[in-house]
Amino acid sequence: MKIGIIGTGLIGASIGLRLKSHGDKNVSVLGYDIDQGNINLSEKIKAIDSKVKSLKELLIASDLIVIAIPILEIKSLFEQITEEVNKNKISNMIITDTSSTKDKIIDWADEILPKNIVFIGGHPMAGSTEVGPNYSDASLFEGSRWVLTPTKNTPKNAIDTVLSLIEAMGAESMFMDAKEHDSYAAAVSHMPLFLQYALFILMRNSNAWGEISMLASSGFKSATRLAGTNPSLAFDINVTNRENIAHWLTRYIDVINQVKELLEDEKYAEDFFRFIGTANLDYLKFADGAIGREHWGEPLTDIPDFNAFDLLMGGMLTDKLNKLDFNDRK
Amino acid sequence: MKIGIIGTGLIGASIGLRLKSHGDKNVSVLGYDIDQGNINLSEKIKAIDSKVKSLKELLIASDLIVIAIPILEIKSLFEQITEEVNKNKISNMIITDTSSTKDKIIDWADEILPKNIVFIGGHPMAGSTEVGPNYSDASLFEGSRWVLTPTKNTPKNAIDTVLSLIEAMGAESMFMDAKEHDSYAAAVSHMPLFLQYALFILMRNSNAWGEISMLASSGFKSATRLAGTNPSLAFDINVTNRENIAHWLTRYIDVINQVKELLEDEKYAEDFFRFIGTANLDYLKFADGAIGREHWGEPLTDIPDFNAFDLLMGGMLTDKLNKLDFNDRK
Repeated sequence: MKIGIIGTGLIGASIGLRLKSHGDKNVSVLGYDIDQGNINLSEKIKAIDSKVKSLKELLIASDLIVIAIPILEIKSLFEQITEEVNKNKISNMIITDTSSTKDKIIDWADEILPKNIVFIGGHPMAGSTEVGPNYSDASLFEGSRWVLTPTKNTPKNAIDTVLSLIEAMGAESMFMDAKEHDSYAAAVSHMPLFLQYALFILMRNSNAWGEISMLASSGFKSATRLAGTNPSLAFDINVTNRENIAHWLTRYIDVINQVKELLEDEKYAEDFFRFIGTANLDYLKFADGAIGREHWGEPLTDIPDFNAFDLLMGGMLTDKLNKLDFNDRK
Repeated sequence: MKIGIIGTGLIGASIGLRLKSHGDKNVSVLGYDIDQGNINLSEKIKAIDSKVKSLKELLIASDLIVIAIPILEIKSLFEQITEEVNKNKISNMIITDTSSTKDKIIDWADEILPKNIVFIGGHPMAGSTEVGPNYSDASLFEGSRWVLTPTKNTPKNAIDTVLSLIEAMGAESMFMDAKEHDSYAAAVSHMPLFLQYALFILMRNSNAWGEISMLASSGFKSATRLAGTNPSLAFDINVTNRENIAHWLTRYIDVINQVKELLEDEKYAEDFFRFIGTANLDYLKFADGAIGREHWGEPLTDIPDFNAFDLLMGGMLTDKLNKLDFNDRK
């Protein structure tokens, strides 16, 4: 089987490296990239068996194509693929991608690609703020989730082919509707990215940044780490998912305003402590590996009442409220 | 010289461990804690030379006292210290602390401690979301900053004594006004903490948390890591620094609203790209170690104009705007 990788940056080269080091020996990996630096380096580090000079050559030779190029380049790539497929009478090809957003890409595929080409959207939930094959890593996807967004028309054999690729990556596949994926990815990945650019800019723009930057320790560094994300990727994500990102930003602003109200006034001390205490208890379960419906089921609609919560926190709430009386009220 | 540590949790035990492993051989370390589990464990792991049974014993024996207990316990500790100092005619004692907020603690010291006791506020800019001597680490403070907030009345010899302690920790001392410290610490440390509780609660409360939690990868984990902070510590920080935290939250909400406006509408694509591009360029300098006045001087009042910025980004901005025309407008 021949797998053709289009785009040999961090993701494309990591897929290639993994296939070469852990995959089936009968699989060979071809690479194509308009960036000569990336393709040459990928060949040098053996992320690909060989590079091809044209898209046509890659399409003719490959059984499965993996696209790992910037999101906003994909529409134009689909047009080029369509041209080559029609010109060279290529059929039975399966294409998947690795982009952070899915709905727009599936629209482009439906609109542009010929009907004899199967496209299945994919999104590996792993990455790095680094770019380029220099930072590629055969274990990048190990243990992480890889979302696939097939539709009811996607042939089973094509799904199986892409599932084998994901299995070879050491990742866990997960089916999702493209629109749902984009909303959840906005929540868990895209919004946090823009929040961190914003947090960094707020501090950097401050008159006191000279002092603030000196006080920044591990907490601030992890709270702004995503600002190291390539702005080109962030831009493309936003163009193809702006409604969802804006929606989650609105909801987040609501929650921050609530937190602000609770923390500003001592009269809300109990509610404030229950808010951060509940967040902490549930965060610890999450950090401990509790994920998915089987663990959580229902949304957290209510924070437990005073007594139940205080019991859960080992009396910490009562103790805190007593301390307040002691310190500030007497 | 005898150093007495009050409170042998993560911070107290880490200071003790460091003194025992890297400090002057003539220094001995005494420990006192109302938590018998912590003090026994600290003795066992040799974070202290010996434990004392009463505050009185510790005060009489020590030349320098380091307080590492919860912030809201400190006022009452100052009252007990005052009682013992007066009863036992103790003089010439130097006390420092390690709390995340400084202004309130200095007020309490001024108000309560006898005049022959010198108090110097301290704040090591290092820590962990873990608690207890189990997680103590002799290298916890290595290379990090340790703020001291002496006043114009603080005797020089007392400052020198505390500076020697900080040097023994492998940390870098930094003098700051207590009120300034609290504002900057709110910006760089306390506000991000509450932002992360809020982000986690927003997602946890969502109906889709079952799915969202499955998509959470390294980005979301680092964006919510601080929600693992002990809520008791977070509560105390807020009680003693709420005005500053609320102030920075207001400013942050303003910035998020700006970002939201920019990302929601394609007509702002250029401004949006310049915003995230500038954040990224400056973040990379910061991540690379550029900190303090010598590096930054002036606040970032202006984002460079189109041409200057595009040059800086290697033509990426022009490219992005062309892609938009190509993808969405045609």
